[in-house]
Amino acid sequence: MARETRVHRIAAGGPDDMSGLTAAVERGDLDPAAIVAILGKTEGNGCVNDFTRGFATASLQAWLSRQQAGEHVALVMSGGTEGALSPHWIVVEVRESDLPPAGGTALAVGRIRTTDLPPAAIGRLDQALAVAGAVHRILGELCIDDPADVHFVQVKCPLLTAPRIAAVEAAGGTVATHDTLHSMALSRGAAALGVALALGEVTPDALEGTIGDAAGPWCSRASCSAGSELLGHEIIVFGMSAAWRGPLAVDHAVMADALDTAPVRAAMTRLGLDGTAQLDEATRSRLVALLAKAEAAHDGAVRGSRHVMLDDSDIPATRHARAFVGGVLAGLVGHTELFVSGGAEHQGPDGGGPVAIIARRADPRRAS
Amino acid sequence: MARETRVHRIAAGGPDDMSGLTAAVERGDLDPAAIVAILGKTEGNGCVNDFTRGFATASLQAWLSRQQAGEHVALVMSGGTEGALSPHWIVVEVRESDLPPAGGTALAVGRIRTTDLPPAAIGRLDQALAVAGAVHRILGELCIDDPADVHFVQVKCPLLTAPRIAAVEAAGGTVATHDTLHSMALSRGAAALGVALALGEVTPDALEGTIGDAAGPWCSRASCSAGSELLGHEIIVFGMSAAWRGPLAVDHAVMADALDTAPVRAAMTRLGLDGTAQLDEATRSRLVALLAKAEAAHDGAVRGSRHVMLDDSDIPATRHARAFVGGVLAGLVGHTELFVSGGAEHQGPDGGGPVAIIARRADPRRAS
Amino acid sequence: MARETRVHRIAAGGPDDMSGLTAAVERGDLDPAAIVAILGKTEGNGCVNDFTRGFATASLQAWLSRQQAGEHVALVMSGGTEGALSPHWIVVEVRESDLPPAGGTALAVGRIRTTDLPPAAIGRLDQALAVAGAVHRILGELCIDDPADVHFVQVKCPLLTAPRIAAVEAAGGTVATHDTLHSMALSRGAAALGVALALGEVTPDALEGTIGDAAGPWCSRASCSAGSELLGHEIIVFGMSAAWRGPLAVDHAVMADALDTAPVRAAMTRLGLDGTAQLDEATRSRLVALLAKAEAAHDGAVRGSRHVMLDDSDIPATRHARAFVGGVLAGLVGHTELFVSGGAEHQGPDGGGPVAIIARRADPRRAS
Amino acid sequence: MARETRVHRIAAGGPDDMSGLTAAVERGDLDPAAIVAILGKTEGNGCVNDFTRGFATASLQAWLSRQQAGEHVALVMSGGTEGALSPHWIVVEVRESDLPPAGGTALAVGRIRTTDLPPAAIGRLDQALAVAGAVHRILGELCIDDPADVHFVQVKCPLLTAPRIAAVEAAGGTVATHDTLHSMALSRGAAALGVALALGEVTPDALEGTIGDAAGPWCSRASCSAGSELLGHEIIVFGMSAAWRGPLAVDHAVMADALDTAPVRAAMTRLGLDGTAQLDEATRSRLVALLAKAEAAHDGAVRGSRHVMLDDSDIPATRHARAFVGGVLAGLVGHTELFVSGGAEHQGPDGGGPVAIIARRADPRRAS
Repeated sequence: MARETRVHRIAAGGPDDMSGLTAAVERGDLDPAAIVAILGKTEGNGCVNDFTRGFATASLQAWLSRQQAGEHVALVMSGGTEGALSPHWIVVEVRESDLPPAGGTALAVGRIRTTDLPPAAIGRLDQALAVAGAVHRILGELCIDDPADVHFVQVKCPLLTAPRIAAVEAAGGTVATHDTLHSMALSRGAAALGVALALGEVTPDALEGTIGDAAGPWCSRASCSAGSELLGHEIIVFGMSAAWRGPLAVDHAVMADALDTAPVRAAMTRLGLDGTAQLDEATRSRLVALLAKAEAAHDGAVRGSRHVMLDDSDIPATRHARAFVGGVLAGLVGHTELFVSGGAEHQGPDGGGPVAIIARRADPRRAS
Repeated sequence: MARETRVHRIAAGGPDDMSGLTAAVERGDLDPAAIVAILGKTEGNGCVNDFTRGFATASLQAWLSRQQAGEHVALVMSGGTEGALSPHWIVVEVRESDLPPAGGTALAVGRIRTTDLPPAAIGRLDQALAVAGAVHRILGELCIDDPADVHFVQVKCPLLTAPRIAAVEAAGGTVATHDTLHSMALSRGAAALGVALALGEVTPDALEGTIGDAAGPWCSRASCSAGSELLGHEIIVFGMSAAWRGPLAVDHAVMADALDTAPVRAAMTRLGLDGTAQLDEATRSRLVALLAKAEAAHDGAVRGSRHVMLDDSDIPATRHARAFVGGVLAGLVGHTELFVSGGAEHQGPDGGGPVAIIARRADPRRAS
Repeated sequence: MARETRVHRIAAGGPDDMSGLTAAVERGDLDPAAIVAILGKTEGNGCVNDFTRGFATASLQAWLSRQQAGEHVALVMSGGTEGALSPHWIVVEVRESDLPPAGGTALAVGRIRTTDLPPAAIGRLDQALAVAGAVHRILGELCIDDPADVHFVQVKCPLLTAPRIAAVEAAGGTVATHDTLHSMALSRGAAALGVALALGEVTPDALEGTIGDAAGPWCSRASCSAGSELLGHEIIVFGMSAAWRGPLAVDHAVMADALDTAPVRAAMTRLGLDGTAQLDEATRSRLVALLAKAEAAHDGAVRGSRHVMLDDSDIPATRHARAFVGGVLAGLVGHTELFVSGGAEHQGPDGGGPVAIIARRADPRRAS
Repeated sequence: MARETRVHRIAAGGPDDMSGLTAAVERGDLDPAAIVAILGKTEGNGCVNDFTRGFATASLQAWLSRQQAGEHVALVMSGGTEGALSPHWIVVEVRESDLPPAGGTALAVGRIRTTDLPPAAIGRLDQALAVAGAVHRILGELCIDDPADVHFVQVKCPLLTAPRIAAVEAAGGTVATHDTLHSMALSRGAAALGVALALGEVTPDALEGTIGDAAGPWCSRASCSAGSELLGHEIIVFGMSAAWRGPLAVDHAVMADALDTAPVRAAMTRLGLDGTAQLDEATRSRLVALLAKAEAAHDGAVRGSRHVMLDDSDIPATRHARAFVGGVLAGLVGHTELFVSGGAEHQGPDGGGPVAIIARRADPRRAS
């Protein structure tokens, strides 16, 4: 039988606020057994000592256990709701569907949890290869043959902490960096290049020595966030597949810089949302989720005007970038429950980043 | 002879970077003797211990002295270029003009420096009355009879510091608050209500007990920022006057919340800039300056979605708000040299704020 | 049968690190069924959005449940390990004891969880009265008649958050403050004055209008910290009682300012620890726990020299104070697992604070 | 004629507060023409975007010019007065002296301003060599033959900023790091190793590849701070010389970790200050200045207890370390006007750091 993806965007009152999820179950909207992934935008600093991610993960695990959900739910928590961004959960269900074939494609979502990565591999080529292999496996499961039908790959990746570095070095190994905050950047970058490999955007030999180089290759559809709560990877692929059913569709854009709204407007228009000015309230209700990466341009400027994000020792650059790009995108969409994630190393061009939009088609029978 | 306002937006490489100003003088674009005001968006935290404002003020004073500028140049420094906002100077010249009357109005700018306010009056009604009186004097000088022709009143106001509080209390007095960060909010609010008084938006008896009340009255055209470097007020009025000449015009909008772009688009359109999507590069060159206030809504939400700005003890709410609203507005305009100032107490509705736009008219002969 | 208090200080690798506690149980040192309280020094910012407290509380609750501990374990998490302070748990057991009477007193610990306080009462007299009543009940249980035998009362109290404020106001009520960070200060102050009431240090009529006044009355033995994870109070009393047995003793000191080490040295000496210079390693092993409050003096100075804690908008004053006083005390003790808690409103004199020391007596038979 | 060093410690109300210096001149205590160096402890974040250093430097330069001081006054501003540390100036005068030879040595101070370093050399061996050469020149001027008579070398060194990195790379060069905050660490380390070279503590060939390695060699008497306001080095040497006169003496200690007070007590005792417990008020008046380096241990622990300084993305580790070690040292001394400077890379052992004490001898005739 065909499969159908359902996506629920639910407000979170805190990292441990399960009330919205429980209410959705009680209303009959959400079937715990069908959940394959929960993405959480939590309100920590999104950097090394952001415990909101671990707290949310623990809270969700306890909730899923109480709800007797399946065992392999991918949990990807991304810290940081700077500016007016609003903490929320994005819950993805996969159900069997008896909808008729729409004569086209529909949103297909698959996920995997990879085995733990040795901390010494974090931010290095071995990490990229591990991610690439995992993405390939998911594409097979989703019946997606053409990488062009993949629009977003969300990866949660590990980071180095002081104890992990000490353990590697005690065992005679080396680490990619001693700077724990910097390890988040390298890990995100290696994971993104792994996605690029899987989608045919780069070749393995082109990656040698480029991880961490802001001028290096990048992936147009990867979104990676790092957290201390895991050592493997949680990977979730969002694509369009003829083997799937339902009214949802996904498309993506790549912003060339922090102000590059034109590709986002175009993607919204392709999805049947009028992206000219700000979405009106009726249209906005059909925008199910927006996921984006934000990053401070490494040349220290946006369209020639200096920014201070990289020179600010009070607020990490990733926090500045999330707040600002959050504003740019919220100005288009008209609401603030956006999954804007910081640290876009090798995820879109330097200073820009990929944006994925999941929408409910006005006419679900229309092929996308 | 008629007067003409010229406005220069110049990038700042730091609080003491005078190179752009000097270059403008050397090019013959800027006449130091004609400068009446310099507004600076500096890169500090915009809160109590933001020394970039004082540093910029001292640097500008030394530069003006070296350039043999006039004595009464208003200097208004607003700290905080969060997100991708870019530090810059807005230099205002007033020159005599032999341009023919345009058959309409043109940008008129006037300023005043009030006498020092006793610290005990900061954040109280006496502060509002002092500001109102000063604004009235400026309107007379600008030949503006109708308050509707006033589009922006920028006020730099004082704040309480620990030593000032101690001095007031040692003398047996009381202060509006012991919280120095909060004193900035009260001072901005009192100053804004002073502008509202001057423009006929409120009456004095309506102000009793409302200073600091987020649900209280507000001014649609005031922008106030507080700094420790002065005890009086620097007030600059931007309006349209039939007695003035030149191609520049000013208009304003009031954002109802942090995402309310429609009034800003409308104001841009009234000024001959196409505000439908993002300004294209040619049109953008005619947008001389954009000045806006940003603020975290006190109900803790934007359009019903929770924000975390008021609960964040790592980053002050004003910094979050500047970064986010900076993104919203930069997404419309297409560049990041925006004078977005935090702390919009009594300056526009709670969570929103006034926006002023100065533009070069496509056809300067056209009446505005 | 007589009772005996045992106290374990256990390093924490994170808010959810239960490994040290589990190891103590497995070694047979710790009996889960005997635990009455766990105090945690966690590594968040110690301010409003410090989720390490809630995360630690949830982790401990799950651990206690797995360990089949009793139901009424008091959990008091205090956020903030600034400087070199080290995250740790202080686990308090009460066991029946067949030790002979020592001819003196021994450490006695009791605790209570009060009912939820209406948010409208936070920071007000009703909160103080609720705390005073609860302390009285504990003293009875501990068989402590003389308030002079009480050396430390640790209180975890609630705070106002944006949603709580909104709820109170929606119901037509008022709150003590709209500033959520400030609500922590008012709540700590009200709770401390409740302890002062219970210990006879002040009378109820002396409290009118003094909550939040830095020059108001204070308690010499209260330590209060506020957290968003509860609406009632967790109260733990540390005293000396002739009805109790064992080698542990508690004493206290009151620092008059942030540098006032003499009273702390004296208290250490009374407990048989040589407080002249830094404790040597052998003596240090008998210092079981040190609990202290730290606070920025409201006159903006320490012994006449200006501090910047109250004017810093990047780092909250409580964080500065914990780091600094942590250094002062660690310099005496020689290690960094100190329970230094910020926000000493009405807890010791302005700028100073109470310090409690729990030590293992060299000769446990000696009467204290 | 012999020379004599005078040292004045003067409170600073802000980076531009010259009132204390002016008052000292007006009292006749301070001769502007004799000033050779001013060290300032200013209240910024001590990291990349700390403009209090530049603001203080500009303010002092203007003041020195107004006071008609000499041209070559070394200005070394060190940002960061975390905890209760108090902003202050340390003004060093060198005057001709007709005091009789004391039969021993006296405090001798010399300084130099090196030529600008190419940004590409920052944090690299060429920087160390430049510093070593400059220290050698100063020792000759001070008539100090034995490096053991050198007790403190304060170096202000440059850092990389985003524009400097861009300029180097535009010219085809490379930089030591792209992380501007990290560049401060590398620059401090390279400068410290330059001092170690000059004092014979290391040899040049031992430095290859060690800059930035926390386990690498270190200098026992260097104190380096980095700032964006210069590209050369300001170097000030404090030593004891038989060719100098006067009651002042300097000595130093090396703390092995953040709690290692014993060597500091010993140095105080050698200088005639009783370092047993906290200095009493009379003795404290003879302690003219204390200068120390503080640093977070890179193994993530102090005496085996975990610290969180290196994992904190809200507060830079240098700020934590200054606050904490400031507390440790202020607890010994009894006041807070301590020149504690962060970032002790290659300045003392990892996690510890050098401390210099300048004192007025009780009997100035006594040989030191």
